[in-house]
Amino acid sequence: MFQNLAPLFAPESLVLIGASDRPASIGQRTLVNIVEHSRFDGELFLVNATKDEVMGRRAYRSVLDLPYAPQTAIVVVPAKAAVEVLAECGRKGVRFAIVLSSGFGETGEAGRQLEEQMRAIVRETGLRIYGPNCPGMTNNNRGLGFTFSPAYQYDRMAGPIGLVTQGGGLGRTFLQACGRGVGIGLWCSSGNEADLTASDYINHMVEMPEIKVIVALLEGINDPPRFARAALNAARQGKPIVALKVGKSAYGVQATQSHTAALSGSAEVNSAAFRQLGIVEVDDIDELIDTAALLARGAPARPIRAAVYSFSGGTVALAADMLGSAGLELSRFEPATRQALAGMLPSYAAIDNPVDTTAEILVQSDISYGSLLCVARDPNVDVVLYPIPMEYGDTTLAACRNMVKAQAEVAVPIVPVWMSDKLGAGFQCLVDAGLTPVRTLGKSVKALAHWNRYGQWMRRFERDWEPSVVKTAAADAAARSEPRAYAEREAKQMLADAGVAVPFGQVCRSADEAVRAAAQCQGPVVAKIVSAQILHKSDIGGVAVGLRTPQQVRDAWETIDANARAACPDARIDGILIEQMIGGPGVETLVGVHEDPLFGHVMTFGLGGVYVEVFKDVSRRLLPLTPQDARDMIRETRCHQLLQGCRGQAAADIEALERLLLAVSGFVVDGPWHIKELDLNPVLAGPAGATALDAVLIGAPR
Amino acid sequence: MFQNLAPLFAPESLVLIGASDRPASIGQRTLVNIVEHSRFDGELFLVNATKDEVMGRRAYRSVLDLPYAPQTAIVVVPAKAAVEVLAECGRKGVRFAIVLSSGFGETGEAGRQLEEQMRAIVRETGLRIYGPNCPGMTNNNRGLGFTFSPAYQYDRMAGPIGLVTQGGGLGRTFLQACGRGVGIGLWCSSGNEADLTASDYINHMVEMPEIKVIVALLEGINDPPRFARAALNAARQGKPIVALKVGKSAYGVQATQSHTAALSGSAEVNSAAFRQLGIVEVDDIDELIDTAALLARGAPARPIRAAVYSFSGGTVALAADMLGSAGLELSRFEPATRQALAGMLPSYAAIDNPVDTTAEILVQSDISYGSLLCVARDPNVDVVLYPIPMEYGDTTLAACRNMVKAQAEVAVPIVPVWMSDKLGAGFQCLVDAGLTPVRTLGKSVKALAHWNRYGQWMRRFERDWEPSVVKTAAADAAARSEPRAYAEREAKQMLADAGVAVPFGQVCRSADEAVRAAAQCQGPVVAKIVSAQILHKSDIGGVAVGLRTPQQVRDAWETIDANARAACPDARIDGILIEQMIGGPGVETLVGVHEDPLFGHVMTFGLGGVYVEVFKDVSRRLLPLTPQDARDMIRETRCHQLLQGCRGQAAADIEALERLLLAVSGFVVDGPWHIKELDLNPVLAGPAGATALDAVLIGAPR
Repeated sequence: MFQNLAPLFAPESLVLIGASDRPASIGQRTLVNIVEHSRFDGELFLVNATKDEVMGRRAYRSVLDLPYAPQTAIVVVPAKAAVEVLAECGRKGVRFAIVLSSGFGETGEAGRQLEEQMRAIVRETGLRIYGPNCPGMTNNNRGLGFTFSPAYQYDRMAGPIGLVTQGGGLGRTFLQACGRGVGIGLWCSSGNEADLTASDYINHMVEMPEIKVIVALLEGINDPPRFARAALNAARQGKPIVALKVGKSAYGVQATQSHTAALSGSAEVNSAAFRQLGIVEVDDIDELIDTAALLARGAPARPIRAAVYSFSGGTVALAADMLGSAGLELSRFEPATRQALAGMLPSYAAIDNPVDTTAEILVQSDISYGSLLCVARDPNVDVVLYPIPMEYGDTTLAACRNMVKAQAEVAVPIVPVWMSDKLGAGFQCLVDAGLTPVRTLGKSVKALAHWNRYGQWMRRFERDWEPSVVKTAAADAAARSEPRAYAEREAKQMLADAGVAVPFGQVCRSADEAVRAAAQCQGPVVAKIVSAQILHKSDIGGVAVGLRTPQQVRDAWETIDANARAACPDARIDGILIEQMIGGPGVETLVGVHEDPLFGHVMTFGLGGVYVEVFKDVSRRLLPLTPQDARDMIRETRCHQLLQGCRGQAAADIEALERLLLAVSGFVVDGPWHIKELDLNPVLAGPAGATALDAVLIGAPR
Repeated sequence: MFQNLAPLFAPESLVLIGASDRPASIGQRTLVNIVEHSRFDGELFLVNATKDEVMGRRAYRSVLDLPYAPQTAIVVVPAKAAVEVLAECGRKGVRFAIVLSSGFGETGEAGRQLEEQMRAIVRETGLRIYGPNCPGMTNNNRGLGFTFSPAYQYDRMAGPIGLVTQGGGLGRTFLQACGRGVGIGLWCSSGNEADLTASDYINHMVEMPEIKVIVALLEGINDPPRFARAALNAARQGKPIVALKVGKSAYGVQATQSHTAALSGSAEVNSAAFRQLGIVEVDDIDELIDTAALLARGAPARPIRAAVYSFSGGTVALAADMLGSAGLELSRFEPATRQALAGMLPSYAAIDNPVDTTAEILVQSDISYGSLLCVARDPNVDVVLYPIPMEYGDTTLAACRNMVKAQAEVAVPIVPVWMSDKLGAGFQCLVDAGLTPVRTLGKSVKALAHWNRYGQWMRRFERDWEPSVVKTAAADAAARSEPRAYAEREAKQMLADAGVAVPFGQVCRSADEAVRAAAQCQGPVVAKIVSAQILHKSDIGGVAVGLRTPQQVRDAWETIDANARAACPDARIDGILIEQMIGGPGVETLVGVHEDPLFGHVMTFGLGGVYVEVFKDVSRRLLPLTPQDARDMIRETRCHQLLQGCRGQAAADIEALERLLLAVSGFVVDGPWHIKELDLNPVLAGPAGATALDAVLIGAPR
């Protein structure tokens, strides 16, 4: 599914098509970045349609004139000329082309046509295309900048983070996190993704040992199965992806569509898919930076317990408060730690977590080192949060130096928070030591929470799990017949065959048959009209419940039949369903599956009935479910409390509900039907089990 | 209730008690701040217990030796000596003492005793005390620093913001927002609040015309009625208070109690009270700064519609997305605006809101000015959000200069967001112009949301409203008798007298009486055991519902009576309540009132039944309610959708529910009972009205 992209990012030979010496032109700026600011030691060819020499170097008129095919081409000619140039690259045998030029899909239909032509070249020649409409590629770990950006020379700190963006602006914001000591090993900006996409670059970074964390800034996902596959590869290798996905609100969806025309998808489904694939989803650029920097220091091996340490009582109280609000745990120190701190710190210091050393440590620098080390070495401490509320010149510098010194002694991460708008030597000391000071308390707590969740996810991830979208998308799409809606009884039969509990029942064509069917049921029965044309059965008097005697069944049959014929004279009536009535205590839940355009089959579970719309108390998972997923899905909802039997009600059989979710998952993924939509609402979850009381299915045979 | 504190903050005469020339001592640092860094032009006396001269100035041995009583004393002698010194100040006639020394309540019981003695001095002499255990007072607008902090000389930018903190560290963080161009006119750190509290300083700032916004960083509230009064004064003058209150989680409550021993209160009630009093509550220090800086530019006169403008497509898409997620509205430009932008910007720019000018404006600086001005002048734009994703040297400087130039032309605020970790000349240009660049997109959106909400609150605030805690706290506390629980029927009778709808009913002592009572009710009745000793009536078989015939009533009487006697042989049974059964469609809501230790009577409204604990779908208000409050309380809950009749159910009579809330409020605030707790659960809200079906009241006659 993925091609080796190494020659694209570090080619042995290169051609710049559109090289120019016109000052500030894109061709000149790109050339300057390659020859003056990059450490490119392969062979570089220049192509210019009208000149034989550019900046004192020989130029060719066409890539076809080159003595051999370079591995990679950088194309900066105008959009209209670019397609011909790419065709020539393909013919010549160039393997990769980075197209920096704009004027393609982002400008409208004509531009989209050009991209279509580019894809044809890809299919015909095997040339792979990066871009177009992008600022290029920055490989800081190799010292290569294939970009027209004049900022390349300034923001090129190497490091363990791989960055994938679609546009350029926000990528540059992240690159400038070098101001906080965050180095980006490789930055790919995928632009319009005419051929290669963000997923290809992510997958490549999964394979790069020097990249520890992948950061993805996505406006849309153009190739969902490939994206899922790349994420899965990252998950299996334990390489974290931190992502910011635009499109959480209608304004965002609109704006990205006008910007990149990429599919945005439902924010809820995206988030659920990300969580399941181990992608850490964040809400802002600084969170991307903070979280990636922390994950680059390793993932936590257990649920984290944090120590808070600083020299200001109000500051540590606020930090502890925020950690608590985020659901994180504070470490309980060993008695030895408290004793040691009591011996070192002033009597009025707070030696329990959160530790307030008081400002005394600012004047007595040795205490600052010793007490911090003592906290970091407590076996119950997994991370030390060290907020610095102000810039105080030499005294904060000394505190920061002690922090760096202590960090050198311990594996537990010490996370500094530089809260002041004044930066000073202390800040720079932390930056230089790679401790990546976070800029606000709240963001430090968010980063810790993301870090903690990633660790949790990693410990639970099942390596052989694979979302159905990865394998079925292509195969299914081809063979699919037109989906249709299956009425309640048909749907229930399909589900029953797949092991989903449904009430015992039978479609009857006469009152006599109904009475016989009712006799086979235990306890009272329900009667419902069966017709593909009648969806809202209750509204037309098509349902009767609690029928206990043969006479009641017979009366119900007559009434329902008459009601249905009166209300819907043209409907084809298949009969009346007589079904065992499942009553008793229980919670009405809903189980639904739909096919998401990006991530394939997604299951939704939650509280059913009238409360669905009001409380939206649901959890979601890509299919197939693992048993762990089924357990988690139920526990994540607030209605889990109801299922456990709050306020003295009997607890539901939650394991039966888990089995039902797994059976539905199996039915959708491996069953004989391709499901567009499946709604089981309600599924009654009670002490005696979990039963789908109603079912609607839209799908087709595979 | 409040005293004029002007002489405390800008005294005509001053004495420093504990003045010293020992380098780095608190007495020396404080003296240096007064004589070298302050613009104090009144008379300054020094007191030192053992010396006649300090730093070349005459020193007295005691404040009693001074030729006259200075208005204000600054006390830096050790805690044990401080009380005697304060007693002398009181005797001499000094009006205010700022006690910087620590070693008081924060160290334990002995220290709390010292504070008790200080309060005795206040009562006896009229001296008012600021502190102790605080870094002092910084009056930047007057150039006065009564503080030992060596940082005073660096962070003393004057400005329109008044800052009140308890501790020092976080106050310094805020002061250093001068690095973003935010000036603090007056900073009070209240320390242990032995006498004067944060509320006094807030109230003083309300009266200072040069202070436009008050920022409060609170660990606890020691004098709730005064706090509410100060907030009310601010509200009535339309002066915003922006507050960060520690204690949202258990960790935070613990940590602040060990730090300042102040009352923390329930986070939910605090937040509800803040909202009602127009206090903008934020979650982090940078949010305090961003929001205060924006409010210092004025409050919005209508619900805001924002324009987003920048030179990066990804950036404006992300900003628009975040605005949408925060529930804010994007402006729809006038056709003239779009036309003008189309004429100025490149053809591939996005001229609809959000505006992506493309990077072209970085090279063509005049476009940058004109197009921004054009956006800011659109009549549908109330604020322009201008995110700058990167530092690009001269080009970003030019963009920032154009922003400053455009802002000079328009009243609509232009809010810059400097997203990069690299600061440059452009950033400094914005700081110098007072545009206060926000540091992340997310925080800029939060600031806009707070700003918008403050405007909304201001437009709805009723100037003569006064929370009951302000007027009743003192009077009631004195006269209060021991509260007791009132059983259902008694409570319902009290409520009915106050105009709250309850079912028609009667306590009966015999089956005959019950049958007669039932005959007076319309429709079926309910029978419930009446006994102060039986709280959970259903559990012991003490309730029967749906009784339609005299025989059913008679049978129910016998059964309930027998059940109650069997289950609770010692209970005093007052009879059986026969009550009209209120059924039919409707939503079971709950209405509760409790007495909060900080803010007095608080009403809670929400969805009742088993869902209360699961969804916690409630709204809260301090009493008394205004009619607007009653409307809002209902609309704020998600169960409002249920009341409106979602999924085809009949809508409830929401106005009747509003009347019920108002009647309960009146009963609690003005009725003959002092209420500790009142629970109406459920209140059935249906198409025919809102009725309290059950009631528990704990209280006492006033």
